[in-house]
Amino acid sequence: ALLAAGHRLRAQDLGGLTAVGITAVRLRRRPRVTIVSSGDEVVPPDREPGPGQIRDINTYTIGALVREAGGIPIPLGIAPDREEPLRALAARAVSEGDLAVFSAGSSVSVRDITATVINGLGRPGVLVHGLSIKPGKPTILALVGNKPVVGLPGNPVSAIVIAGLFVVPAIAALLGLREPPRRTEVTAVLAKNVNSVPGREDYVPVRLLWQDGILRAEPVFGKSNLISTLVRADGLIRVPPDANGIPAGEQVTVRLF
Amino acid sequence: ALLAAGHRLRAQDLGGLTAVGITAVRLRRRPRVTIVSSGDEVVPPDREPGPGQIRDINTYTIGALVREAGGIPIPLGIAPDREEPLRALAARAVSEGDLAVFSAGSSVSVRDITATVINGLGRPGVLVHGLSIKPGKPTILALVGNKPVVGLPGNPVSAIVIAGLFVVPAIAALLGLREPPRRTEVTAVLAKNVNSVPGREDYVPVRLLWQDGILRAEPVFGKSNLISTLVRADGLIRVPPDANGIPAGEQVTVRLF
Repeated sequence: ALLAAGHRLRAQDLGGLTAVGITAVRLRRRPRVTIVSSGDEVVPPDREPGPGQIRDINTYTIGALVREAGGIPIPLGIAPDREEPLRALAARAVSEGDLAVFSAGSSVSVRDITATVINGLGRPGVLVHGLSIKPGKPTILALVGNKPVVGLPGNPVSAIVIAGLFVVPAIAALLGLREPPRRTEVTAVLAKNVNSVPGREDYVPVRLLWQDGILRAEPVFGKSNLISTLVRADGLIRVPPDANGIPAGEQVTVRLF
Repeated sequence: ALLAAGHRLRAQDLGGLTAVGITAVRLRRRPRVTIVSSGDEVVPPDREPGPGQIRDINTYTIGALVREAGGIPIPLGIAPDREEPLRALAARAVSEGDLAVFSAGSSVSVRDITATVINGLGRPGVLVHGLSIKPGKPTILALVGNKPVVGLPGNPVSAIVIAGLFVVPAIAALLGLREPPRRTEVTAVLAKNVNSVPGREDYVPVRLLWQDGILRAEPVFGKSNLISTLVRADGLIRVPPDANGIPAGEQVTVRLF
């Protein structure tokens, strides 16, 4: 074979194919990724939020990540925090998607509803409920039959970080790619101390800036429900689980967005 | 402003916009990039080439690079090596495209025709004809009015290398991006000597392989008309103009495709 299965077609590969007169190839279908947001407080972005309400962000950020990874995002809308309506939408998500992504409400009771609903859809159900990752603790990883299901945290920053760690590689696997997608990485000098708790993997957004000929990574601190922290950031650094932080002045690898 | 002009919208930026209820934004239009292949010997890829004929490769490889860079490729077909018909297609390319890309025949006489035709379309015309770059010597850079025009070498490998150096950044400029697109780079140990001529910038395709825990970059040697050399390669290394090569064992930066 000119090109092995699982190869991502680059410009020169199309050239190699046309050179020998191959003008049509069988490709792996782009995976359909259904997206369900949930939460009584979540309203569509074109609506003015009332007291205690917030606009739906995750449908759009996760949709963009899905598209970038080679999948087709299929947003199914916003489910309220009750088992019955959430179950109906979740069943549709699992049947219509090659991969189903839920962005659960952030309160513990609501997360439990999501896990209960996923378990009710079929076996084996929830495999992982909770990760030693910050942000991203309330993540759910599940299988309904052979369909992968990811329950993202409701907080927009956590949802993006966890989607990068689990949804993007799942799409690459569904695409049959031999290699996971590569994110551009740069090396920089950490500009401020980053604290962490041993036993937990931390992802910290950083902004890059050149200063006196040195590329510096400045942590962008902020709550995980503030999407603006990621808007101001250029990438993420990872604090490994066995560390209790990274001191200012250390070299760090920044995974660019 | 939430986001400055010239910003490439990432997933979190869409989130930042929806968070404040902005559901529509004004975007820079994707540049239309017209592509003309030329050469009496060039036939469409679905046709069986006769003696001395070759299938058109550049329309498809350059089209893929244009799309990847954020442009809209508009292939205009294959022009014969005569001024009149080439002029007609070239005039259409410049009027319909925000950027016009010609992939000229490889013989000197044909390159001269391309330059003559571009000069005939309007001022200032051809600005650069020939570069100290290998592969890519017969490159033409031109302006017709305020429309950028790039004349790529006809050899498929040269065409891809030169398109990466000039067409991709031109599209980024037309998109108004503040930063040129970043290609992923990795550091590797050169596995074989690479020879070069001082005064000339060389781009050498390399294949990456892990060997005894070391990432090695193995040069893929081959003629610049053999697209298969790039199909087998993972990236390019650059030999700067002041060097007469890079010895095996040196650390090199590989720009991945």
